[in-house]
Formats: sequence, structure tokens, C-alpha cells
Amino acid sequence: MRNADILSEVTTPALVVEHSALERNLDLMAAAWPARRLRPHVKAHKCSELARRQAARGHVGFTCATIREVEVMAAAGLGEDLLLANEVVDMRRLGAVVDGGARVTVAVDSDVLIDAAVAGGVREVLIDVNVGLPRCGCAPDDAGRLADLARRRGLGVRGVMGYEGHLMLVAEPGERRTQTEQCMMLLRLAHEAVGGDIVSGGGTGTWKSNEWVTELQAGSYALMDTAYAAVPDVPFEQALTMVATVISVSDGWAVADAGLKAFGMDHGDPALPGSSVWYCSDEHVVFSMNDGTPLPSVGDRVRLEPAHIDPTCALHEQMYVVDGDQVMDVWPIDMRGW
Amino acid sequence: MRNADILSEVTTPALVVEHSALERNLDLMAAAWPARRLRPHVKAHKCSELARRQAARGHVGFTCATIREVEVMAAAGLGEDLLLANEVVDMRRLGAVVDGGARVTVAVDSDVLIDAAVAGGVREVLIDVNVGLPRCGCAPDDAGRLADLARRRGLGVRGVMGYEGHLMLVAEPGERRTQTEQCMMLLRLAHEAVGGDIVSGGGTGTWKSNEWVTELQAGSYALMDTAYAAVPDVPFEQALTMVATVISVSDGWAVADAGLKAFGMDHGDPALPGSSVWYCSDEHVVFSMNDGTPLPSVGDRVRLEPAHIDPTCALHEQMYVVDGDQVMDVWPIDMRGW
Repeated sequence: MRNADILSEVTTPALVVEHSALERNLDLMAAAWPARRLRPHVKAHKCSELARRQAARGHVGFTCATIREVEVMAAAGLGEDLLLANEVVDMRRLGAVVDGGARVTVAVDSDVLIDAAVAGGVREVLIDVNVGLPRCGCAPDDAGRLADLARRRGLGVRGVMGYEGHLMLVAEPGERRTQTEQCMMLLRLAHEAVGGDIVSGGGTGTWKSNEWVTELQAGSYALMDTAYAAVPDVPFEQALTMVATVISVSDGWAVADAGLKAFGMDHGDPALPGSSVWYCSDEHVVFSMNDGTPLPSVGDRVRLEPAHIDPTCALHEQMYVVDGDQVMDVWPIDMRGW
Repeated sequence: MRNADILSEVTTPALVVEHSALERNLDLMAAAWPARRLRPHVKAHKCSELARRQAARGHVGFTCATIREVEVMAAAGLGEDLLLANEVVDMRRLGAVVDGGARVTVAVDSDVLIDAAVAGGVREVLIDVNVGLPRCGCAPDDAGRLADLARRRGLGVRGVMGYEGHLMLVAEPGERRTQTEQCMMLLRLAHEAVGGDIVSGGGTGTWKSNEWVTELQAGSYALMDTAYAAVPDVPFEQALTMVATVISVSDGWAVADAGLKAFGMDHGDPALPGSSVWYCSDEHVVFSMNDGTPLPSVGDRVRLEPAHIDPTCALHEQMYVVDGDQVMDVWPIDMRGW
């Protein structure tokens, strides 16, 4: 896994975590959302070693998006309270994780999935409520009925969740807060009908504005990306960069070896400070320098900032944890795939 | 690896290859570009088992984009003639592959990389020429000088390569042919100065229009994607689809469990025939049905068509090879990473 102790010698493209920036991000969030008030979302980094650092700050409950994430977290000894905040139809693998001693709660939004939870051996659910993002979640006024059905089927109903994902990148903080409140009023209404201790929702983008949930499902805050960095009042630092090697220099542009197989591209091209990124192809990023700065030379290394951390991490086998040029550790990205 | 013999039981999201369509694609290309006239690009599928089917049709030379691809192809016994059609600065791992008995030729476009080839133990190069795509490649009139330098340094120079990647998706066939000819005239000019047997270039998009190369570097033709399917005179069939499970249905839309961690998103959303795809998030694709067709039910399966095959394959551990609902084989996508 480890192929160098010095960052300048690792194989590129390489995901690099600045250890001190990560620590500051984890501390800042833990101060605002301490212990179980935060349920960190592992989908952002898919790395159980990073999750371990979050658990060490008291966040012992985690949010997952896939069955694989639940399985790996449990196997890593981080299965005290795992929420699969997503709908799944075949829950047998989750039942096996429960049988193995982990606590697994699953989001359900339909009768079919309540049956699936029972059939799969899952014992606890949250009712997933549509709070405005057209994706999963039942209608708010159907949540009580689903909770009753789940309880009749013998499931524990721990509360509700609702994700205001469409608000994460709303630029104006006041507007974001107003819209978040509207979404969360729907969720609280559903919660009154459902009962249970948990009102789960939110993310890095609403860490300041969502005061209605009992627990925040933030994930991106730990490592960050350029999409979140552009949002006012999201002060977390860019702890993750991509190291790439310059492989070709022409008259007016240069090419480094990190392309669209190294970056999640749904939020657009990565950024390279001081330069203009022209485009990415499979294994290339093409860029020119701003303000008359000379182009780098072949063999130089550059550090790019991903536009969207979640799918970026999913493309890599490991992340290098560094202090300056010193590689302190190599963490496997062990929750990839399904 | 294999988790079901029946397609309807595999874990989703799952990459699925329709065996008969793959065979027809391989046969059609082999008829037009037989044996060594085609140097299939493995970056499109990253699957040595698929490469083995291409080799069985006489295409014993392959194109690679990364060192990892070269290593895995050699280890799979497919190292008779591997071209790394990309610039790399540290060639020691390639030298080790050469020492292991494989033939490895590397693209170089600068003095620095000629030094790197010598230092790394690589013995043969192609001069990579910029034919109009602003990426790698030397200026056409510098190719002869680089070839001379490489030969003085003891390297075998097998010829030139130049990739007209910016023309692959030009819609109008006559225009694509005219522009391809202009690019290839630059490459042939460079070839006159360089010498050697090889003029390598082209891709699936110019399989009909590029009559100037001695070998075509096509890769996408085997499995295809919606971007290439939209190009006239690219008649290869969509052999690759993504099976996803419907996990949630609301009033007007449905959600299936394949999102932007399952699809390369640089060419946009995947397609679902008969439906309108609204958007993808990490583990979701949200869609509505066209023409009044009823929405599917929770638990139903849908088959989506990726917009860009190369980064899509890079996100998956395996592809299921099927004949209808029967899983015939499971091929590891074994060339991922770097």
C-alpha cells in the first residue's frame, strides 16, 4: 500500500490529506456538533481509518450510503450505531451484520421496504421523509402510517430522517437558513406522527443553519472540496488535494497525470491554484498559468483541489496522510464498491 | 466475485455485458482493422479477460494509458507488444515489466522523457506528436530531432503516434474525415522525419475516417456508450449497461440505486430508454417515464446506458457477462488504479 515515505516520491495521481487541516476540521465540527449530535457520513471519504478519528471525538454513530459501507464499518469495530441513510431492497447482508453484533438502522420510505427489513433480519428503522429534494422519502403526511406499519411488523422505529440536499450549496446564508427551516418543519411534523428519539438530517452545507435536527449527517467537512469551499459560512479547510506529476509541457499549456479517472467530474473540473484548468481527459488535466507565471517543468508536481470529494475518493485505493512532505500514514479507502 | 448465476439476483449497481453484442462488436472491428492493424486500447474497459477476447481475434498488440494497465496486461500473459500511449516520468516499473519478458513501448514527447526511458530500463519508444488536440505530443517539426536523440541514447524508435481525440465525436462524417486527414498529414510528416514501422492513432470515432495510420488505437467500440452511439457511422452496439434496482417511487418520479459513484459523469447523465433522467447523486439516479408509461415499482430492475464507458468501468470491480438473464461469467476489472 505504502510506496514511499516522502510525498514527492509517491506514485501519482495520489490523494493527499494534510493531517493538521483534517484535525482542525474535525475539531471545529466536534465543537459545534459534539458527540452523538454529529453522525458523520462515511460516504464522503469511504475510509474506516478516518472514521476512527471521528469516533475518537465522540461521534460513535455513523451514517452510511451503501451496504458495503455498513459491512466495512462493522468489521472495523465501528458498528456501535450505524445508520444506512438510504433505501435498499435486499437487506439480508444487513441482517448478517446485525447478527454479528453491530447496531444497524435502515431508512425506509415504503411498505415494500418495511417488508424487506423484516425479511432481511434488520430490527430498527428510521422513516425517511421527503423534505423537498425530489429523491427518496415518503410524503410527510404518510410518515405516521409507515411508522405504525413498521411497529406492527415488529421493527423498532427510532425516528425520522430527511435530507435537504438541494440546499447544501445555496450561496446566501439567510436564504439557506429560511429554506432549511421550511424543510425541517416538514420533518418535525412527520416526527410528531412517528415518534422516536431521532430527527436526522443536514450536511456540511447546513452545519450552521440546521438547528432542528437532533443529529447532523455531515461528511464532506472533514476533507472538503471546492464546491463547499465556495459556500459562505462553511469555513472548513481544504484538507484533501490530488498530487499529480507534470508529464508534458507545450507552448502555452501543461499536462499533469490526474484526469477524469482520478476526479469525480459531476461538479466540473478540479482547481489548480494560480492556473486555469482547460479540461480533463481520462488520465490528463490540461492547464495554463495565470498572470504570466511560467509553466512548470516536466517532472514537477502540482496539487489540485477536487470539485466533489465523494466520487473522487471512490476512485482511489488509498489516501496519503502527510505533514508537509512527510508521509505519516497511508489509509486504505476500504468502503468502495457495493 | 460471483454472487449470482442469474442476472436478476446480482448485487446492484452492476455492470453488465451482453455477450452476443460484445462478440458482434469485436467481429465487426476485426473485419475492418484485422490483426495488428488494430491495437485495442484497454483503458476503455480495464479488463484483461476482455482483452483476451480481443487477442483471440489476432489483435496481439495493445494500447495502455497507465503503468498499472501495462503491468496487469503483462501479468495476464498479454504482453507481446504493449504500447503505453501516454507520457510517464518515472519508468522504473515499466523497466521491470520489460525485464520480465514483455515488450513495452512508451510514448515520449520531450528530452526529459527520453532520459526517463533510459533511466527506467525501457528500450523502445514512439515519438508522440501533437496533431491538434492540445494535450501531450511534441510539435510535428520537432519529432525528427527527438527520434535522433532517442536513438543516440540507445533506444529503439518504432515510429510515431498522434491522437486526434478532439475529432472522435464530430457528428458530420465528411467533416470528421476532412479534419482527420489534416491531423494525419501532420503525423505522416513527422513520421517521415522519425522513421520506423508504426504510425499509431485514431479511435472508435475515426474507425471509418482514419485511413492514414498503420494501426488504430480504438477501445470504446467493444462495449460502447451513449456518446459514441450518437455519432453517425459508428455502428457498434451498446454491449454494456448498468443494472440498477428501483428503491423508491414517488408521485411523478422513481429512484434507482446507481448514481455518480457508478457512472463516469464527465459526459453527463446516463440514459434510461423510455424515461427522462433528472439527475444523479452519489448512489441515486432519479427519473420519470416518458409518454405516460407507468413508473416501475420498488424492487424492479432497470438497465441504464453509461454516457462514457472509460471512467464508468474504472468505478467497478467486475463486469457480469450475460446471455439474457443468465450470468455466463464474471470478469474482474483488474486494471483499475495506478
